[in-house]
This record gives sequence, C-alpha cells and structure tokens, in this order.
Amino acid sequence: MPITLKEYMQSKMEQLNHQLEHQLTLLQIPERLQRSMLYSIHAGGKRIRPTLMLATCEAFGGDSKRAFPVACALEMIHTYSLIHDDLPAMDDDDMRRGMPTNHKQFDEATAILAGDALLTTAFYVIANAEQLNDEEKVFLTKELSKASGPEGMVAGQMLDMEGEQTSLTLEQLETIHRHKTGELLRFAAVAGAYIGGATLKQRKEIETYATYVGLLFQVQDDILDVIGDEQAIGKPVGSDVTNEKSTYPQLLGLQGAIAQKDKYTQKAKEALQQSGGDDTLLVELIDYISNRNN
Amino acid sequence: MPITLKEYMQSKMEQLNHQLEHQLTLLQIPERLQRSMLYSIHAGGKRIRPTLMLATCEAFGGDSKRAFPVACALEMIHTYSLIHDDLPAMDDDDMRRGMPTNHKQFDEATAILAGDALLTTAFYVIANAEQLNDEEKVFLTKELSKASGPEGMVAGQMLDMEGEQTSLTLEQLETIHRHKTGELLRFAAVAGAYIGGATLKQRKEIETYATYVGLLFQVQDDILDVIGDEQAIGKPVGSDVTNEKSTYPQLLGLQGAIAQKDKYTQKAKEALQQSGGDDTLLVELIDYISNRNN
Repeated sequence: MPITLKEYMQSKMEQLNHQLEHQLTLLQIPERLQRSMLYSIHAGGKRIRPTLMLATCEAFGGDSKRAFPVACALEMIHTYSLIHDDLPAMDDDDMRRGMPTNHKQFDEATAILAGDALLTTAFYVIANAEQLNDEEKVFLTKELSKASGPEGMVAGQMLDMEGEQTSLTLEQLETIHRHKTGELLRFAAVAGAYIGGATLKQRKEIETYATYVGLLFQVQDDILDVIGDEQAIGKPVGSDVTNEKSTYPQLLGLQGAIAQKDKYTQKAKEALQQSGGDDTLLVELIDYISNRNN
Repeated sequence: MPITLKEYMQSKMEQLNHQLEHQLTLLQIPERLQRSMLYSIHAGGKRIRPTLMLATCEAFGGDSKRAFPVACALEMIHTYSLIHDDLPAMDDDDMRRGMPTNHKQFDEATAILAGDALLTTAFYVIANAEQLNDEEKVFLTKELSKASGPEGMVAGQMLDMEGEQTSLTLEQLETIHRHKTGELLRFAAVAGAYIGGATLKQRKEIETYATYVGLLFQVQDDILDVIGDEQAIGKPVGSDVTNEKSTYPQLLGLQGAIAQKDKYTQKAKEALQQSGGDDTLLVELIDYISNRNN
C-alpha cells in the first residue's frame, strides 16, 4: 500500500526539525539571538514548503536526502519572513500559531536581528551543503534569492502593505499572493524537481502546479478567516473583515471563493499530470491544502 | 608616478555606483521599495569596503573587474545593516551622513523591507555574476554569509545592543567591533585576495591586516565622537558620552585611545608586509582610515 501524505509528512518532519536545529546549534551565535531564532523555528507550523520540496524531488525519482539542506534553508527564509511580518511596523501581530510572536516573546530589536540572521543563514546552509555540487548550489542560490527577494516574496509583502484598506481587483489580489506566498512554494517545487533530476520542461509544469497550489493556499486562508475554527487556527478569525482587507470571499462571496478554489485545484492537477512525475503525494497535497482547517 | 588612494577611490567609485544602480534598476521591484533601496545606496558614504576589496584584488595581480559584483553585494549588505541599525527599535537614529535615515524618509515598514531586499539581493548578485565561475561563487557566498550572519556582523549588533549602558572591558569592546564592523572589512580583503589569486597563506595574512584595519576604523570613530567636527561627520558628536556607551576613549582616555590606534596600525602594517602583496594602496588605506575626519 502506498504511503499517505500524512505518514510521509510525519516521517520527514522529524528529520527536518532535527536538521534545522542542528544547523542553528552548530553555529557560534550570541545566546539570546540563538534562542530567538530557535523559538520561531520550533514554533513550527505545517512545514508545507519542505514537504512540497521533498515530495517533488521523489516524484522525479530523486533522493530527498540531497534536498534536505535546501528544505532547511527555505524554512529559515519562511520563518524570517513571519518574524518580520509580525513586527509592530508591519502587520503588528501579537500571536502566531497560538504562541506569542517573536518580538512579544523577546523584543523588537532581537526579532529584527533574528530575522536577518535566519535569512543570511539560509544562503550559508546551501553554500555549505555537502550533498550538492557547486553547479547545483549556484542554481539553487539564484532561484532562492530571486523567489524570496524584492522581485518575489518581499515584493509581495510591500504590495500587501500598500494595498491595505484599499479595494483591490481580483487580478491585484492574485499578484500579491503570487509574490507573498506563491514564490516560496514555487521555489519549493522547482528546487525539488531540479534536485530530483526533472527536465526543464517538467520543471516548467511543476512550476505551474506550485503556482496554483500557492493560490489555493491563499483562498483557503481567506475562507478560514470567515468560517474557520479559532482554536484550530491559533489566531482570531474575522480579522480580515475588521482590517478591511481585500480577500477572495469579500471580492467573490463565500460561494465564489469556493468555486475559485475548485478552479485552481483543476489547474494544479492538470499541470501536475503534464509534468509526468509520480503524482501520488502531490495530488494528495492539493487536497490537503484545499481542505485544511488551520 | 603611482596612483594615490584618493585618485584610485575616485576612479573606481563611479563604476561601483553605476553598477550598484544598474543591479537594482535591472530588477522588477515595486516602485516605493526600489526608491527606498536606492535612497540608502545613493546616500553613499566612503565606500571603504569596496575600495579595500578592489585594491586587495589588484595587490595580488588580479583584475578588479571580476571583483565588482562581489563589491556591489558587499555594499548592499553594509547598506542593509545601516538601515536596520537605524530603526527605532535598534539605535533609533534620525540622521545619517547628513540625511534623514531610511525610516524617516519613508516609513518603518518600508525600511525593514528595503533592508531585507538588499540583503537578499546581495546573494542574487554573486550567484548571477558572469565574471565568476561556480567554485568562486560558492566560496564567496560561504564567506559572505558567514561574515554577515549570526556568527559575524549580526552577532556584533546583538552584542552591541546587549552591552549598551553597561561597562565593558577592552576585550569585550574588541569582540563587539571585530564582529560588528570587522567582519565585513575582513570579508572585503579575503574576497579581494581570493579573486586576485592569492595563496591560502597570503589570504590569512591579509585577513589579519583587515582585522586590524577594522579595529583601527572603530577607534577612530570613537575618537571622532570626542574631538570630531559635527559638520564633517554629518551627525552630532558627543553622543557616545550621552548614551553612556563604552568606547576606547572612555576606557583608555583620549591619549590611550590614540596609542591603541598606533598599536593597531603597526599590527596591520606587519601583516600586510607578510602577505607579500603590492602594498602601495593598502598602506595608504591604513593611514586614510586612521586620520579621517568623518
């Protein structure tokens, strides 16, 4: 019987968490800074990006052990972005995943530095990965810096802040999400496929798949803010309405948002089939993201 | 007649500024974010780190054109660190080099993102440098991420914040400076020597040279805060005393600080001679840093 996504995630996440902790305790870091970095790394979450990368690597017949350092680097970048986004000058959030945000647990200066440190360490980890050759390291550094930088994730956060309290069109909303959450998911899939030995054409298809997975992720986030369970999500629901944020349900209505989710699901599945990789886990990942309750 | 350091800096800085601007205008960046990044990049300063890198490269017979992308990357990292250090939660500075700091000119959220973006772009620039091969890119990414990350510059900023308003020993003060300002100067010299074709032994000597240049830089900074000209520095003098900051003059007296500077100068010159590189510009750089009035 093939392994389920849930079993797969459980089997990989222990290794991933171990390696993440190992990477950060290996370094000579001032004690408070290290605690702050580890606090947010341990705060965990679903580890969807690393899961996507490892599963994509295996879908093309690759050995996911070689992708682990890159998955760690990606999770460091994702974690830094959450720490900085939560800051008072940005989204000003006190809680995340049911725990105080980094600047609440430590202080603002430490949170800024912990974010800077995680971002920098991500590139250190790739450059020092024994499992990868120089050509691979350069390719992955190029892709990760592009996906997470001012053309990618940082652009998304900037556009999101600028778009606050204004009415966005569906196209503008998609542009923000494609950057803010989409780019790191896209990188996860592209990096996994690359390390797994996919062809350029296959990488393009898997890139499309991941783009729709990213949009899917965001619609479901918006839907959960309307009909989700506060306990399961770990933060208050209804905050989008309070903050007058543009969301899928606000633009399309709840039923429209659900229909949009189905459209993205369809597109993701089509691209996945086109890629020709083993799609067992990657199809399940679509359903997991589409139906998650937190 | 050999070129003077001043002439050298002038001849290189135009190219450097041009390339820095080119790197950042080449990218598709949201308009406000790009303006904020360029504002701090243009705010300029003395470009000591790129100068040190290019001159070191040439001191070992290398073509400094190959070092330019790395010099740009380093200046981006230096600039990001200034933007984040100036933030209200950190050093809370309103002015830098006679101009409003980034968060004063724009806003805090934009300043945080501009810093994140410059940091990320630094690694993008190295990974995409046509002048360098993959082995060189990986070496330089390793070194730069180490020098600027939680074992390097970020550690220095953390220790500096923790050491504020407490009495430090000379050793603790040196540790902070070795990290906070020393690590990027050390990287500048090591990267320049590496690209220039220096041997490992020569790189070690030039590393020692740069470490003392970094300390020298800091003693002079502290001395200028006591006896400097506000107009020339572009920020108020005497702020270290007001902020009860540990400094060389406070620990050793003004004469003691000047004596310490001479000691560092001596050590830097010895290491430089040991390195066997052409020392014309690099000796002059010691004197320039030691005697600068801003």
